[in-house]
Amino acid sequence: MKPNFSLRLRVFNLNCWDIPYLSKHRADRMERLGDFLNLESFDLALLEEVWSEQDFQYLRQKLSLTYPDAHYFRSGIIGSGLCVFSKHPIQEIMQHVYTLNGYPYMVCHGDWFCGKAVGLLVLHLSGLVLNAYVTHLHAEYSRQKDIYLAHRVAQAWELAQFIHHTSKNADVVLLCGDLNMHPKDLGCCLLKEWTGLRDAYIETQDFKGSEDGCTMVPKNCYVSQQDLGPFPFGIRIDYVLYKAVSGFCISCKTLKTTSGSDPHSGTPFSDHEALMATLYVRHSPPQQDPSPTNGPPERSSLIGVLREAWTELGLGIAQARWWAAFAGYVIVLGLFLLVLLCVLAAGERAMEVAILLWTPNIGLVLGAGAIYLFHMQEAKGLCQAQAELQHVLGRVRETQNPRLGPHLAQLLASGGEQS
Amino acid sequence: MKPNFSLRLRVFNLNCWDIPYLSKHRADRMERLGDFLNLESFDLALLEEVWSEQDFQYLRQKLSLTYPDAHYFRSGIIGSGLCVFSKHPIQEIMQHVYTLNGYPYMVCHGDWFCGKAVGLLVLHLSGLVLNAYVTHLHAEYSRQKDIYLAHRVAQAWELAQFIHHTSKNADVVLLCGDLNMHPKDLGCCLLKEWTGLRDAYIETQDFKGSEDGCTMVPKNCYVSQQDLGPFPFGIRIDYVLYKAVSGFCISCKTLKTTSGSDPHSGTPFSDHEALMATLYVRHSPPQQDPSPTNGPPERSSLIGVLREAWTELGLGIAQARWWAAFAGYVIVLGLFLLVLLCVLAAGERAMEVAILLWTPNIGLVLGAGAIYLFHMQEAKGLCQAQAELQHVLGRVRETQNPRLGPHLAQLLASGGEQS
Repeated sequence: MKPNFSLRLRVFNLNCWDIPYLSKHRADRMERLGDFLNLESFDLALLEEVWSEQDFQYLRQKLSLTYPDAHYFRSGIIGSGLCVFSKHPIQEIMQHVYTLNGYPYMVCHGDWFCGKAVGLLVLHLSGLVLNAYVTHLHAEYSRQKDIYLAHRVAQAWELAQFIHHTSKNADVVLLCGDLNMHPKDLGCCLLKEWTGLRDAYIETQDFKGSEDGCTMVPKNCYVSQQDLGPFPFGIRIDYVLYKAVSGFCISCKTLKTTSGSDPHSGTPFSDHEALMATLYVRHSPPQQDPSPTNGPPERSSLIGVLREAWTELGLGIAQARWWAAFAGYVIVLGLFLLVLLCVLAAGERAMEVAILLWTPNIGLVLGAGAIYLFHMQEAKGLCQAQAELQHVLGRVRETQNPRLGPHLAQLLASGGEQS
Repeated sequence: MKPNFSLRLRVFNLNCWDIPYLSKHRADRMERLGDFLNLESFDLALLEEVWSEQDFQYLRQKLSLTYPDAHYFRSGIIGSGLCVFSKHPIQEIMQHVYTLNGYPYMVCHGDWFCGKAVGLLVLHLSGLVLNAYVTHLHAEYSRQKDIYLAHRVAQAWELAQFIHHTSKNADVVLLCGDLNMHPKDLGCCLLKEWTGLRDAYIETQDFKGSEDGCTMVPKNCYVSQQDLGPFPFGIRIDYVLYKAVSGFCISCKTLKTTSGSDPHSGTPFSDHEALMATLYVRHSPPQQDPSPTNGPPERSSLIGVLREAWTELGLGIAQARWWAAFAGYVIVLGLFLLVLLCVLAAGERAMEVAILLWTPNIGLVLGAGAIYLFHMQEAKGLCQAQAELQHVLGRVRETQNPRLGPHLAQLLASGGEQS
């Protein structure tokens, strides 16, 4: 590789709002998206919410000449909705499905049925190893009373851990997707602090965004409209994040969004805006490596965000255990009622009423049983994420104060977080 | 690091058969296991089937001086059962829960409720990065009619992928655990071919095993007694696998098992025998690196095993889709019967019978609905594993015949496997 080596990487990200039977103008939007991607010829196009495999196959065929390699990530009941189209050969593929992803009984929200995941693609570009990740985290339905906060923090931690452990010999790391978190949200900070990923929107020298407000986001109403900074449509939950790991530096030359409509026909691609980033990768002497991963100045902010996440997961664990205990009481009550109904049915007077009440009562016991098992599983998943966070806290504190042994640091970490 | 650098690594692995209310003599066995581990002072002790967190905490306290670092991996409803005790500080921890793990309605087998997983520990030993993995795959209840074969192959592939992608900057990789597979089983071959891991039992210069047959395995009857080689107790489903990634070579000096009893008191630790390996890591010039990962001579066997796994997963997908379709028909039938019962209940003559049949009918519809959703999810998980296998097949064939473009190779790979 020459010392003046430079690689340009053009990346496209879009949450496609491609939900069979629910999303409007799917066929038309997919067709225009295909035309646009063919015209622009990005290096990588990473898409979320492509919940129709037929639509993926349609795009795959339409884009086959410009993007010869593609992959559709399958998980859960409905699917992860993630897919990718690449101009360059994809060397390796892997998927990690998040342990926690909402509640099965929240059918109207539906995230649980999707099997939210992170997809990894390894590409070799001009001798450079690029790890590209695409993901979609649990939606936020109410900012004021967010019952999914602990799950989203756990997902952000799993995502950060997955990137941290799978990118150790990558030269460049790229994460695109719909994180369903605002830039200063706990999960977003946790992800950035633990992986060292940088936000293209903050880092870019040249941002071109829509100025005429959001288009279909308010109609879909699945994210609140709280204003968080100068982003044109008020909310920012889709991201292009990146870092160079060693010997390279990466910068974002331009970041563009669509402007409530696609650049050619004037109607929107989706209920989200697309992100289009142009990144440059260059050689960098090791001492000038700008990667901020776990450097001493950032350590205090890492500790802060780890502690905050630890507390949030702790609240989630308490909540999960409360629901499991409540479901346990309901099971006991339901079983008692069943016995009572059997006694009543044995007599003559209330036999019909007793038989009529069997159905809802058996439903109650089975439903409570399912809820009990589900929340036990939820508690276990949250406990694992919390234990991993606590371990990292112990290690970070130990490197801060090497005179502490590893076990004393671990003890202090756990002591500090135990309520 | 000196050129004559050599590191000795003593490793202990045991499936502990520690199931609350079911396993016999738990307290006594845990106490003796703790004494033995303290006495032997291994570098790493990796345990499976520790399904009682109280027992883990008991061992943690008992072993705290000899093994100052420990971790319990939490997942699923009951737990993964995995834990680890380390003499050296654990630098990093991560867990990956397998996407597929049996069927929730197979309550008597219970694997689905456990959340089977793989745990990763990163250790730094004398400047060497050691990635140690501990896992436990789905049990085999019948070798002749193994309904879990596709799930175990998918788990083996996920395990292989997890190791492949997370160990890229490790110097030494170690995998211990209960794979529930015989050495020549498809999943075991897939794991070894894709990761390059070598079997301590095959590689060791000095094997000392029990000679008085198996102890509690036949009583527990959850694995068949088919003889597969000279291993003392006939079946071999617990493994110590290892490899050195680059610049190092690793060899197994000794491999010992317990002999139907613990070495001191004469009664067994568990219904499995423990494995105790002494490994030596040395410097190795890169050209003498014995790591067989994907080298040209092994490529044809890799292709063979990938194709076989592809076919097995295909059979699993067909089965999952059949069950989903069957459950779909049952739902339609159940709904039709519900309407019929409503009509009967409206009349006078058969009202009581109709009301009495509501409960089982509603149960039928709900049960079939759950089975439909579950098998849809199963098909998605198997499809993802199959797609990843197909992608690897395409890449391997492309490197075999570089004149083929990546897309032609992919096409050939998919064409060859499509039925």
